[in-house]
Amino acid sequence: MKRVVIIGGGTGVYTVLSGLKKYPLHLSAIVSMADDGGSTGALREEFGILPPGDIRRALVALSDSNNKILSDLFNFRFDEKSSLHGHSLGNLLITALEKITGSFDGAIEEAMKILNINGDVIPVTLSKTRLLAVLEDGTRIEGETNIDIPKHNPDLSIVELQLEPSVEANPKAIEAIKNADVVLLGPGDVYTSILPNILADGLVDAIQTTKGKVVYIVNIMTKYGETNNFKASDFLCEIENYVGRGSVDMCMVNTQKPKDQKVIDRYKEEHVEFVENDFDAKGNGDVKVISGDFLRNGMFLRHDPEKLAKALYEIVK
Amino acid sequence: MKRVVIIGGGTGVYTVLSGLKKYPLHLSAIVSMADDGGSTGALREEFGILPPGDIRRALVALSDSNNKILSDLFNFRFDEKSSLHGHSLGNLLITALEKITGSFDGAIEEAMKILNINGDVIPVTLSKTRLLAVLEDGTRIEGETNIDIPKHNPDLSIVELQLEPSVEANPKAIEAIKNADVVLLGPGDVYTSILPNILADGLVDAIQTTKGKVVYIVNIMTKYGETNNFKASDFLCEIENYVGRGSVDMCMVNTQKPKDQKVIDRYKEEHVEFVENDFDAKGNGDVKVISGDFLRNGMFLRHDPEKLAKALYEIVK
Repeated sequence: MKRVVIIGGGTGVYTVLSGLKKYPLHLSAIVSMADDGGSTGALREEFGILPPGDIRRALVALSDSNNKILSDLFNFRFDEKSSLHGHSLGNLLITALEKITGSFDGAIEEAMKILNINGDVIPVTLSKTRLLAVLEDGTRIEGETNIDIPKHNPDLSIVELQLEPSVEANPKAIEAIKNADVVLLGPGDVYTSILPNILADGLVDAIQTTKGKVVYIVNIMTKYGETNNFKASDFLCEIENYVGRGSVDMCMVNTQKPKDQKVIDRYKEEHVEFVENDFDAKGNGDVKVISGDFLRNGMFLRHDPEKLAKALYEIVK
Repeated sequence: MKRVVIIGGGTGVYTVLSGLKKYPLHLSAIVSMADDGGSTGALREEFGILPPGDIRRALVALSDSNNKILSDLFNFRFDEKSSLHGHSLGNLLITALEKITGSFDGAIEEAMKILNINGDVIPVTLSKTRLLAVLEDGTRIEGETNIDIPKHNPDLSIVELQLEPSVEANPKAIEAIKNADVVLLGPGDVYTSILPNILADGLVDAIQTTKGKVVYIVNIMTKYGETNNFKASDFLCEIENYVGRGSVDMCMVNTQKPKDQKVIDRYKEEHVEFVENDFDAKGNGDVKVISGDFLRNGMFLRHDPEKLAKALYEIVK
């Protein structure tokens, strides 16, 4: 069975996994450990654990669809205003499993058994770390959530991104990338979902030396305060700034523009724009560009899991 | 397979179930819904659910021992001082399941599936209610926990016990009692674990009309503020005051006195005493008394699950 590794965080990983899991593939999700917001951030701060949020989303995406109640439980969220502070029950379960098994790794292993996971969910590192961004004016922004919101002047570009302290990548993540037939980067926020993985020591080397194809999935929309005015080639360029020129073999770009003007206008109000495919005009070096309609219809402009998975399977098989 | 129904609450039910589950029997635990203390009480108050605590204990007792991690999860308790207020994760799971399925009944059914339960766990009622005790001086004590602590003058006897409002018994509980080969009452606190079940409308009738044997398991020790100075016959007499004279067929009494003087002294300080078997002297009417060593060695003077189960199986088989 072909082995596909997905590197990311947030909803992007969920989208890819839930689409691809219908195909006969071995899926491994490598997820960022820099998340420090919401329920995850609160548990991380209080219980000194690694952040469970992205792990939970990947677990649920890969869970046995015949056992819907368990994934419903993992996704269940207590009321924000309750004494349980809007916690996700899945995050609480992972927190308890870390305490019971004595390790984050052990917690994920047990959660994978409970949810009858078909595939692997791998935290990019087993060490605690924090994301740090430097803006073009030299301002340092600490913490993934602060970069994500954004708390800084959103018109300033991020010129540097680090993990502090720097951390070793999880050997399981390195192993999975090296043995992959295809490594998918994204879709996801460049600075707060994809790169926090890439920055773990050893990960770039694994991506550069894997015999598998490396495929970068360009986002549907820009993200205010991170990728303002980015076109497809800007996304690829920034990813290659971190993983190294020539490391990406293919690039997937959505070309289907959203049709609902109301939705476009709402995004525009939030300074978020449709990402143009500018590869034809600008050229794309050695990177093969696969463009097409990967858009999901709806209020939120995201990749369609089915369309994306279908196109990805053509690459993988 | 012979059908055994256990009626109680608290640790007593756990003891009986964990001992009996090693025998080829169909076990059903009927548990009280009057619990309003601790994690259970807080969730009940805030989320308007039925109390999950005793249900959780019975579920864990009957859970598949090959899947220890799930019962560990159900029993996991967050730190008292944490923002999760000492909640039991199992209680949170049951709370979430009640919200997801839309009913307490549905929540228990799903929890039984998740834990791969061999048997049944049945809440005595599906209606919300509260325990109310009247003392010999007329004082009314509201709430199971207040009676249990006790918050009242512990030298005053409880002369009346009610559920307020009165509630219908769960039809599943009635059904289980009617179809039982043996119905076990206790062990457990008379006023705060056993009788809160018996008081549900329809339960006494089911006990009186079942063709199964009704067996009352007398406690090892008295409980301060509930059963001060009670001897075995006093326990039986009080139970029969509620289930009706002639309803109990057998009575199990431990005769093995604790040997460790330190443990006895510690209990004495808390006004708790060893329950004497006074049946030989006083007679016991039509009730068959089975006496023997059912004591567990240790710091806490409780029934030994193995010894008790062995003696019970002799009755059942």
